[in-house]
Amino acid sequence: MAPAAEHLATVLVCCPDRRGLVAALAQLLYGHGVNILDADQHTDVPAGKFFQRIAVDLSEMHTDRLTLERALSEVAERFEMRHRIEYADRPKRMAILVSKYEHCLQDLLLRHRAGELACEIAMVISNHADLAPVAQFHGLPFHHCPIVDGDKLAQEQAVNALLDAAKVDLLVLARYMQILSSGMCERWQERVINIHHSFLPAFVGGRPYHQAHRRGVKVIGATAHYATPDLDEGPIIEQDVMRVSHRDSVGDLIAKGRDLERVVLARAVRAHLEDRVLVYDNKTVVFA
Amino acid sequence: MAPAAEHLATVLVCCPDRRGLVAALAQLLYGHGVNILDADQHTDVPAGKFFQRIAVDLSEMHTDRLTLERALSEVAERFEMRHRIEYADRPKRMAILVSKYEHCLQDLLLRHRAGELACEIAMVISNHADLAPVAQFHGLPFHHCPIVDGDKLAQEQAVNALLDAAKVDLLVLARYMQILSSGMCERWQERVINIHHSFLPAFVGGRPYHQAHRRGVKVIGATAHYATPDLDEGPIIEQDVMRVSHRDSVGDLIAKGRDLERVVLARAVRAHLEDRVLVYDNKTVVFA
Amino acid sequence: MAPAAEHLATVLVCCPDRRGLVAALAQLLYGHGVNILDADQHTDVPAGKFFQRIAVDLSEMHTDRLTLERALSEVAERFEMRHRIEYADRPKRMAILVSKYEHCLQDLLLRHRAGELACEIAMVISNHADLAPVAQFHGLPFHHCPIVDGDKLAQEQAVNALLDAAKVDLLVLARYMQILSSGMCERWQERVINIHHSFLPAFVGGRPYHQAHRRGVKVIGATAHYATPDLDEGPIIEQDVMRVSHRDSVGDLIAKGRDLERVVLARAVRAHLEDRVLVYDNKTVVFA
Amino acid sequence: MAPAAEHLATVLVCCPDRRGLVAALAQLLYGHGVNILDADQHTDVPAGKFFQRIAVDLSEMHTDRLTLERALSEVAERFEMRHRIEYADRPKRMAILVSKYEHCLQDLLLRHRAGELACEIAMVISNHADLAPVAQFHGLPFHHCPIVDGDKLAQEQAVNALLDAAKVDLLVLARYMQILSSGMCERWQERVINIHHSFLPAFVGGRPYHQAHRRGVKVIGATAHYATPDLDEGPIIEQDVMRVSHRDSVGDLIAKGRDLERVVLARAVRAHLEDRVLVYDNKTVVFA
Repeated sequence: MAPAAEHLATVLVCCPDRRGLVAALAQLLYGHGVNILDADQHTDVPAGKFFQRIAVDLSEMHTDRLTLERALSEVAERFEMRHRIEYADRPKRMAILVSKYEHCLQDLLLRHRAGELACEIAMVISNHADLAPVAQFHGLPFHHCPIVDGDKLAQEQAVNALLDAAKVDLLVLARYMQILSSGMCERWQERVINIHHSFLPAFVGGRPYHQAHRRGVKVIGATAHYATPDLDEGPIIEQDVMRVSHRDSVGDLIAKGRDLERVVLARAVRAHLEDRVLVYDNKTVVFA
Repeated sequence: MAPAAEHLATVLVCCPDRRGLVAALAQLLYGHGVNILDADQHTDVPAGKFFQRIAVDLSEMHTDRLTLERALSEVAERFEMRHRIEYADRPKRMAILVSKYEHCLQDLLLRHRAGELACEIAMVISNHADLAPVAQFHGLPFHHCPIVDGDKLAQEQAVNALLDAAKVDLLVLARYMQILSSGMCERWQERVINIHHSFLPAFVGGRPYHQAHRRGVKVIGATAHYATPDLDEGPIIEQDVMRVSHRDSVGDLIAKGRDLERVVLARAVRAHLEDRVLVYDNKTVVFA
Repeated sequence: MAPAAEHLATVLVCCPDRRGLVAALAQLLYGHGVNILDADQHTDVPAGKFFQRIAVDLSEMHTDRLTLERALSEVAERFEMRHRIEYADRPKRMAILVSKYEHCLQDLLLRHRAGELACEIAMVISNHADLAPVAQFHGLPFHHCPIVDGDKLAQEQAVNALLDAAKVDLLVLARYMQILSSGMCERWQERVINIHHSFLPAFVGGRPYHQAHRRGVKVIGATAHYATPDLDEGPIIEQDVMRVSHRDSVGDLIAKGRDLERVVLARAVRAHLEDRVLVYDNKTVVFA
Repeated sequence: MAPAAEHLATVLVCCPDRRGLVAALAQLLYGHGVNILDADQHTDVPAGKFFQRIAVDLSEMHTDRLTLERALSEVAERFEMRHRIEYADRPKRMAILVSKYEHCLQDLLLRHRAGELACEIAMVISNHADLAPVAQFHGLPFHHCPIVDGDKLAQEQAVNALLDAAKVDLLVLARYMQILSSGMCERWQERVINIHHSFLPAFVGGRPYHQAHRRGVKVIGATAHYATPDLDEGPIIEQDVMRVSHRDSVGDLIAKGRDLERVVLARAVRAHLEDRVLVYDNKTVVFA
């Protein structure tokens, strides 16, 4: 029988590659009565770095969470490890930032309703009022945060106030048509996911479908990445592509691209929510 | 620095799911000075079964292989585990069985030459003489084993004599146009890989491209599987597909299918050679 | 400049392959001042059949529609041609039949709102009341037609009355969990599109994801086809597939399958609405 | 019955979009007893350009080729048309230029042997001697044209002399590791196909797999294009991609890329040989 969701947790680890690591962690968990359900690891040999994701069942743990966390911290120190533990009974709180396009927002909300996204959706925020009915249909708070007199920092402050008040963990830019300030990117480092409508690093910047059409490519793509102050340069979480031909106008690319964008964004969000993503050297490890 | 190939080994494990398994194995390996490079595992929760593949580096092992194997056997007994250990310095020996089509044979030989397949190719065997020059070009023994007077069992005996003499570990049917006898399948259980030119279980039996054309499918496929006495019913290792349209004649399907067949077969052979495949309940676990 | 939508039309033709066909049609259209925007054709050589789709601009036609239609009928008789002409200013009227799953319904309604589907949506019909709010959100009539005391024919009569009253041209089964009667299939021949959640002809019948999981396939699929009295045997319009692995439970296959089902159904519906599909010998020609 | 290959021809047309074009061509062909087997057309509405490919059967032509060509030229003049006619009984002559990698060369030669490429292979040319045995195995002339003292123009002169003497129509760079001079590109305009090992325009220039690995992309690609003096900027004929993950080293990308490169190059070569490619505005129309 599958263990109950409230006893599940995930341990994530990143450290210099060293002997005995795997055994030390496995032994530690076993010693607390914590059962390993699934473990995936990766070694970047040239970089000398080790990464591990361990899914565990705490239902027969014979100590408590605090004790376990202390033990993990001790091992972490010994191995110069960055680590964290995430508990399934404390789901992440997600906010979705949109402008006027609804396809990515609708897709995330429908997936959430179907049980595909293990999170709470705290709110939808937009610089336009158009998508309020979509949020309302799904019973979610909608906040209209317009950019007044071009003052984007003021608007970001308003957004941050909302996010802080609702204890949001993850910010998803679901075709949000504004560029975040450096400050905003840094504040939400590795916690803000953007969908770019091209196969990065091809067609950085604006109007990528127009660029793709002009270049005559036979394949278009979409890229979900963590936002960083360097626009379109953040760590890539997920990408996918679709065939196009000379028959496709710019409008056709935009329509086809919608299907790509929503699927790629949803996969990236899901990987993040399930604690499958580790970032290093501006790249990601995404465990399957 | 990556460890030298001659010190690498792979431990494969399959057993009822039990607590402490992962820790016990990790501890055992650590205790012998064996470093874990990569570990992948899978639990089939409804079936209550656990699978693990551990890639290890033996270069600093402070016991020897025999001692390690004995220790593994002891743990295996305790956990009712089926297990095996494979050493990179004892590469598998592969034989390729063909008829007249060359595309899969050529593909495997070219990949081997490019270093993609970690094995020794012991020989090429065929019921026809046509492909002898291909084997010769690659400097490989070619054995012509025709079926005389319809006596397939006699031919299979001849084939087995060749395979035994050359200590072959893996038999690849690279579009071999004969059905193996039940006895042959059982003798080579989980060690003979066939490529079927359809997306199984669609279009079992003969002339699958003709069947696909008649049915008007929009996608064709190929399936690599372990051969079993139940024709086309063996455990599937790898599958892939390709789009087709009303424009494609049967001949076009056959030509497109060649690209599918060689890629799907090569991936399955590679997964087997790298000890990534575990079979249970007529299905496979294929670690990435 | 692109011609205005209200002057566009599509001519579809199917006949025995004969010399002079293409020239005769081109000449006829030219003679009426009808400009050919796009023409696609296909010859099934073994079957001796010719198919053509001609997209035309009527804005400078110097006769009228009735005269054009008469001229087409004369040529059609001469070449033993089945033909029809569809006018863009008379969009098809579509009804969507659902049960409790919302993903395909939502997908079609969102695409319609985004302008991807050139039709009017007349209504949503269901044997359950659950999805009424979805139709209402999109401002569409929702009809609850339950099956009472197992009397499916009575329910189909009620459905047909609704469809007739609203002059519906196309019926889409968007994961409708009832099997249509033979009579219903025949009444709506080549005008009812179903989505089957497997890569047909693999896994016909019920619970295809369970079947796929048991067989251990590495790829799952979905198939959109015209419904016929022979269940799951109708002409295939569109198919697509997705990779899965041993890690995927039946529940994972169902979730991944939702993405496939909605995309495959939408493509098939769109091809039908744009008059790109011709049926013969239980197969389809789908012009790009 | 399918018409015999020696009577097949292809008419290619590119001109400003004008009424009556399709009818004029259809009528002209019909008037000569030339039967249209397949016609595909495309209108780039914003650019105001019309493209058509007509596959015809000449077996019942009641004039001769010269008369047909004159009639075509007259119509062409009237419609400001660029056009050409290609006869199946005068197959193109292809030369393959390679360095040391064999995978693309082998792939083209094996496809040619399997009947997939409708051309004569005139020769293989290389700046290294390594692949001579591959050409010899296939019974093809191999010319070693080394670059002596860095004098690339002298080497290109030698290559051109070989190509001219053998009346070569198409030059394929099958992972040829030298950059062609501008003069060479211009001389072979729209007749030299290169395979670039990235999804252009991502990763132009050298070592694209290293660039892709550093950027951490989740998909790699390959691009076949006509070579132009602007490196990696020529009209794209075909592209395809493959998923990769954090597990893939640069070496893995190179190995996976080989599969992409050979398939993408082969599809582009085939499209060119079958006269399916038309170039305009540094883009291509590739008829299916």
